[in-house]
Amino acid sequence: MNAFTDIMVPEFLGTMILILGGAGVVANAILPRTKGFNGGWLLINFGWGLAVFAGVFVAFRSGGHINPAVTLGILSNGAEEFAEGVPANFVNMLLYWVAQLAGAFVGAVLAYLAHKQHFDQDADPAVKLGVFSTGPEIRSYTWNFVTEVIATFMLVFVILSFGNWPGDLGPLAAALLVVGIGASLGGPTGYAINPARDFGPRIAHFVLPIPGKGSSDWSYSWVPVVGPLVGGAIGGLLAAAVF
Amino acid sequence: MNAFTDIMVPEFLGTMILILGGAGVVANAILPRTKGFNGGWLLINFGWGLAVFAGVFVAFRSGGHINPAVTLGILSNGAEEFAEGVPANFVNMLLYWVAQLAGAFVGAVLAYLAHKQHFDQDADPAVKLGVFSTGPEIRSYTWNFVTEVIATFMLVFVILSFGNWPGDLGPLAAALLVVGIGASLGGPTGYAINPARDFGPRIAHFVLPIPGKGSSDWSYSWVPVVGPLVGGAIGGLLAAAVF
Amino acid sequence: MNAFTDIMVPEFLGTMILILGGAGVVANAILPRTKGFNGGWLLINFGWGLAVFAGVFVAFRSGGHINPAVTLGILSNGAEEFAEGVPANFVNMLLYWVAQLAGAFVGAVLAYLAHKQHFDQDADPAVKLGVFSTGPEIRSYTWNFVTEVIATFMLVFVILSFGNWPGDLGPLAAALLVVGIGASLGGPTGYAINPARDFGPRIAHFVLPIPGKGSSDWSYSWVPVVGPLVGGAIGGLLAAAVF
Amino acid sequence: MNAFTDIMVPEFLGTMILILGGAGVVANAILPRTKGFNGGWLLINFGWGLAVFAGVFVAFRSGGHINPAVTLGILSNGAEEFAEGVPANFVNMLLYWVAQLAGAFVGAVLAYLAHKQHFDQDADPAVKLGVFSTGPEIRSYTWNFVTEVIATFMLVFVILSFGNWPGDLGPLAAALLVVGIGASLGGPTGYAINPARDFGPRIAHFVLPIPGKGSSDWSYSWVPVVGPLVGGAIGGLLAAAVF
Repeated sequence: MNAFTDIMVPEFLGTMILILGGAGVVANAILPRTKGFNGGWLLINFGWGLAVFAGVFVAFRSGGHINPAVTLGILSNGAEEFAEGVPANFVNMLLYWVAQLAGAFVGAVLAYLAHKQHFDQDADPAVKLGVFSTGPEIRSYTWNFVTEVIATFMLVFVILSFGNWPGDLGPLAAALLVVGIGASLGGPTGYAINPARDFGPRIAHFVLPIPGKGSSDWSYSWVPVVGPLVGGAIGGLLAAAVF
Repeated sequence: MNAFTDIMVPEFLGTMILILGGAGVVANAILPRTKGFNGGWLLINFGWGLAVFAGVFVAFRSGGHINPAVTLGILSNGAEEFAEGVPANFVNMLLYWVAQLAGAFVGAVLAYLAHKQHFDQDADPAVKLGVFSTGPEIRSYTWNFVTEVIATFMLVFVILSFGNWPGDLGPLAAALLVVGIGASLGGPTGYAINPARDFGPRIAHFVLPIPGKGSSDWSYSWVPVVGPLVGGAIGGLLAAAVF
Repeated sequence: MNAFTDIMVPEFLGTMILILGGAGVVANAILPRTKGFNGGWLLINFGWGLAVFAGVFVAFRSGGHINPAVTLGILSNGAEEFAEGVPANFVNMLLYWVAQLAGAFVGAVLAYLAHKQHFDQDADPAVKLGVFSTGPEIRSYTWNFVTEVIATFMLVFVILSFGNWPGDLGPLAAALLVVGIGASLGGPTGYAINPARDFGPRIAHFVLPIPGKGSSDWSYSWVPVVGPLVGGAIGGLLAAAVF
Repeated sequence: MNAFTDIMVPEFLGTMILILGGAGVVANAILPRTKGFNGGWLLINFGWGLAVFAGVFVAFRSGGHINPAVTLGILSNGAEEFAEGVPANFVNMLLYWVAQLAGAFVGAVLAYLAHKQHFDQDADPAVKLGVFSTGPEIRSYTWNFVTEVIATFMLVFVILSFGNWPGDLGPLAAALLVVGIGASLGGPTGYAINPARDFGPRIAHFVLPIPGKGSSDWSYSWVPVVGPLVGGAIGGLLAAAVF
């Protein structure tokens, strides 16, 4: 195994594509003067789900995690490998995480560039942040945390059941699962369910020269990181116990 | 066969995931201040359908019924097994039913916890009940029953045709079928088409400390239980006759 | 080959399921007081597409035509068989057509029964007819005919290309094609693209005791029958020339 | 290899079907008095994506490019063949391009004929052009170009990763990718991501006798041609480097 070509490059590129698509659909749905403005929640759910679809294909060599909570869930599950030929261990998990975070940052920059002129319009600072990172509708660290734990538990637990059923849908299964989780459990917090998905773009929001951008809301930023990691670990453990 | 690990655990977990996703999408679409508020009927159809997708994967070992009407339909069809190595008989059916009902109850509690703050908002009691259980738009035990019979007949009859066509879509086929039935036949009653889906969450509604929750509408509760069972049995019998 | 069990029963049941789902989604989207009222065009497209999905599965033994224009297109294509073991000839085509028409009639009755109380509400007679049969937004026999020819040409021509690509999606391919054709070419006339889909339910509308139902619009009824047959024949001929 | 039957006929027909569906769904969503009027962005995304689905099936023999940027991307990727038995070289690429452009023109004419009466209604000339060709919401050659480059990079880069994952979805993978790219990156410019898709229909708009049609906006027409070609080439080169 070569850590650079078997873990870091594919996870970086896969997560980059994930966030290009995912931040992109939110930009399209909420920034002023886009063709998809006010396109609705299902548009956002399909945009994110199909961004997972694309990202998992790109990251095929590393198993298509593109999500630190998935990597942690596979480790907590007790699996021997993260991908074919890639041992599942703590050090490799950190490599996955670094690559995922870097890819998410770059993906957010690309989504920003693709929507540059729409970021230059007047809009509520919370709208501009909302393209990059999640935020709750009703703020409560406790209950927002609970929501992210439950949603990410569902993500990782179900992913770990995929191999057991005949009929291999490949990345489509993960994509549809994410469409469903977004539709069902994304209402309170905006379903980070992926620490890199939230933290990488938040850094991008912090550093990019976006007119009228406002705060990056660091006080909330731990919820969409820790919640998904806890939920992913629980999902991995329960899957180990029952599958 | 071990009844606990081959029937009860997978059906419990699969139905739990089904209701976590299914009650979740309704919560997102109708409770106050969610991101998916007023997201529309197609959002609800996809949320439920993809909850089926996830739940069937999780319950692979028991054949992914996650619905007492499906289990009854397979029995009435005359199949020898509910799943590989699990004989289709009345006693095993009861074990499926108990596990499905318990899983549905726990799934509803998880969906409640994920949306706790939105249940704490002021809303019509019928809205809060609507997250858990179905209710008709125009109440008539007779015609609501007919609707549930027809919709569940379609569900079970078509599921029993799945194995005959090449190209194995696995749980996706059931998921898409449920998206379609919801779109087509869910308008009058909210498409229970699954006794556990309705009864388990109704019990959860009854016991959970939801502010301003109102009645659990027990007088209607037999319709989404008996209707689907009758429809499922008819579906199984017709499939036995023609496939 | 047994004409009854290999052609008529499966085509009858498959088309019945098609119309149960297809008329159902229109009922849900346009009749008063349904949960899906005003659910939008994409809801209707998915409802019809997934009704195709279900119907094709049910009609597996006869090749899943469930549409006289498809049967004619296969004949005009010069194929030797309508389905495995079923010779493609004029007499068998007539058997397909009779079974499809009868199934469409019964499916429309079932969709009516499932929405009985909503048909009993006050509504424009054109709305009530619209659940059963198609009608143009701007009436012109010439141009409405052209639209139906083009849309059905696309249906049959693309279906006849399905076998050439690896990755067998089975009935899902037909379903997605119909979702797409509805989205793209259904705007002017409501995309019959299937004579049985329009004529069988129109007869049902004519005979059912629907309060305040108005005319069955027989003067338009030839367009969604002849248009699809012409389009299907062209699709079959072009496919024979180029595939 | 026969250039006519192995490249030109399938690419012509596949791109024709692509534009019939793609221009069709825009017509349905924005022209006056269609059934899908104001159907929303997700309707347009699914309509275009499923038009890709149909077009790729039809063009199976030539590899289902139906997009000059894809053909260029495969060449820049260094692949030996455009399709089985079709060498990837500059001359063949030009044949693909000519066939794609011609097919797009004819597809646009068919979509026009299917919506003839709706084009005859009064509408903003920009709406009528919008059925044929893309146009930006906020005009800036620089940033519109950037958006098209990024979106087409994602298209070609991800397509070139498809073969590496088990579970062959065939044309469905390309279709879903295009649904996702439209949802995510189509907001600023309307996602040409395909020079033939934009230029062929623009010529059709220029020559067709559409009442009140206004300018064909040739000053913008280079953006959706050059942008996708640049993006496709970058996608092919990066894929060569990392996959």
